[in-house]
Amino acid sequence: MSTLTSVGPWSPKNPDYERVVHEAFAAQTAMALIQASLDHVGPGTVDIGLACHAQIMSHVPPVVHGGTIGMLADSAMGFAALTLAPAGGTGVTAEYKINMLAPAIGDRLSARGSVVKPGSKITVAQVEVFVTNEGHEKLIATALGTLVSL
Amino acid sequence: MSTLTSVGPWSPKNPDYERVVHEAFAAQTAMALIQASLDHVGPGTVDIGLACHAQIMSHVPPVVHGGTIGMLADSAMGFAALTLAPAGGTGVTAEYKINMLAPAIGDRLSARGSVVKPGSKITVAQVEVFVTNEGHEKLIATALGTLVSL
Amino acid sequence: MSTLTSVGPWSPKNPDYERVVHEAFAAQTAMALIQASLDHVGPGTVDIGLACHAQIMSHVPPVVHGGTIGMLADSAMGFAALTLAPAGGTGVTAEYKINMLAPAIGDRLSARGSVVKPGSKITVAQVEVFVTNEGHEKLIATALGTLVSL
Amino acid sequence: MSTLTSVGPWSPKNPDYERVVHEAFAAQTAMALIQASLDHVGPGTVDIGLACHAQIMSHVPPVVHGGTIGMLADSAMGFAALTLAPAGGTGVTAEYKINMLAPAIGDRLSARGSVVKPGSKITVAQVEVFVTNEGHEKLIATALGTLVSL
Repeated sequence: MSTLTSVGPWSPKNPDYERVVHEAFAAQTAMALIQASLDHVGPGTVDIGLACHAQIMSHVPPVVHGGTIGMLADSAMGFAALTLAPAGGTGVTAEYKINMLAPAIGDRLSARGSVVKPGSKITVAQVEVFVTNEGHEKLIATALGTLVSL
Repeated sequence: MSTLTSVGPWSPKNPDYERVVHEAFAAQTAMALIQASLDHVGPGTVDIGLACHAQIMSHVPPVVHGGTIGMLADSAMGFAALTLAPAGGTGVTAEYKINMLAPAIGDRLSARGSVVKPGSKITVAQVEVFVTNEGHEKLIATALGTLVSL
Repeated sequence: MSTLTSVGPWSPKNPDYERVVHEAFAAQTAMALIQASLDHVGPGTVDIGLACHAQIMSHVPPVVHGGTIGMLADSAMGFAALTLAPAGGTGVTAEYKINMLAPAIGDRLSARGSVVKPGSKITVAQVEVFVTNEGHEKLIATALGTLVSL
Repeated sequence: MSTLTSVGPWSPKNPDYERVVHEAFAAQTAMALIQASLDHVGPGTVDIGLACHAQIMSHVPPVVHGGTIGMLADSAMGFAALTLAPAGGTGVTAEYKINMLAPAIGDRLSARGSVVKPGSKITVAQVEVFVTNEGHEKLIATALGTLVSL
């Protein structure tokens, strides 16, 4: 079994980071529009979930639109980085790259963002997106991106 | 003035490509959910528009959510490639990378996808996303990606 | 500790894959020019090593030139994919993205490529590049890319 | 003909930028090792050339090793950004993505880097790599990346 490198653990600089992340997520109307939920927040990591409902489909349903998956990845990356920001600090996504690995067909998506390397200027994070289908979980996308501290 | 390379022109293999692209776009519930419109379809190129409405905001409105911009880029890339597919052929996005260049603040977004290199196995496409604000148009994101023919 | 997903194990289709990979590596004059060595070949994975010698420096030595690191990543990705190719089959790198995580200062580089998702048309692979400095190993770059089967 | 967006013109902050870029290029042993030359330096742009000699080959000569092309792209991006740095300032490549568009077969490579968006914290640049073969020039790779100011 080929195992990718473990990274972290990371120590949040803001003891109140969980509240900060939850409030920022709740303020994003785009996340509400697609009905995404913030399922987990930890040091350097978040998990964003989304049911595979009828309004996020590609032109070949039941395959979920790839753009929706990218949208989850973008958010998961940004919020993973935000967990490590100092109090009052924030960041923006400078860029990301996403590879789609398999069609997103199933019941629910889960985008798990992790900080690979935090930094005072830029932070690198990665996201793995899974779909759960009839109880079985499958990796369907992987993303790698860069966040700039503000 | 530094000018990027001109590419194309490309010749569609399917004379009915415009209808194919419009039908595929219309079938995507995800594009309807965010209220995107297919504003132009040409050989190797499409333009997808989206008003900067209240439901696609990041947590710092009026900045549009970056994930929404990625979603437009993903679609513009895929449909640009689809304009060059043979009759009955289609494709899927294998991957893309997007750089955010400026905050998306304004009235309307326009994601313009262009095929850089078509191919029978894979097609490379790029997208530039602009925002129009008080009549002035600004480049806010640029993306580069790979589509696989099916 | 945040741990990235384990992928694989993958089963080579060509029982002679080790020889194929070693022969292809030996035929690359570019790898000889920079003095890289193929240190390990396994199912879906390879390890390419390179001493941090004086001829691969950036303009701020002893920092190794980032392009050299990208070159190792490109090769590690391609050869990881090649381990899973059928007999007589090969592939080309369609694209990759690399994030530099820390300056490459040390004694020796090691680029470890792993297949994330093999496929008959395209394969997705990732690479982690480490530097060893005074016996301590550090992750300095991570890459994600797409290979096309030929 | 689909034409990509024109960007710039950019104004160098350091009147002595040409000298700075030439000196940094000359100091890179990695560029000397592959025999690359800095053929042009302008505001926000550089051109790096490389003859397709026998020591930069892939395992299927006369196709140049993709890693060498990535190495040129990495350098062209970094030096394009450096033309716009303030006196005494420098930068490092945070990340880039490159798409290979056609096999690099020919007499000479030319990697042309252009700044897409300069910034005080990060700069986005793109590179197009051409090969000249029997007097005909062909686009063989396109890259997009992010530089961090130091």
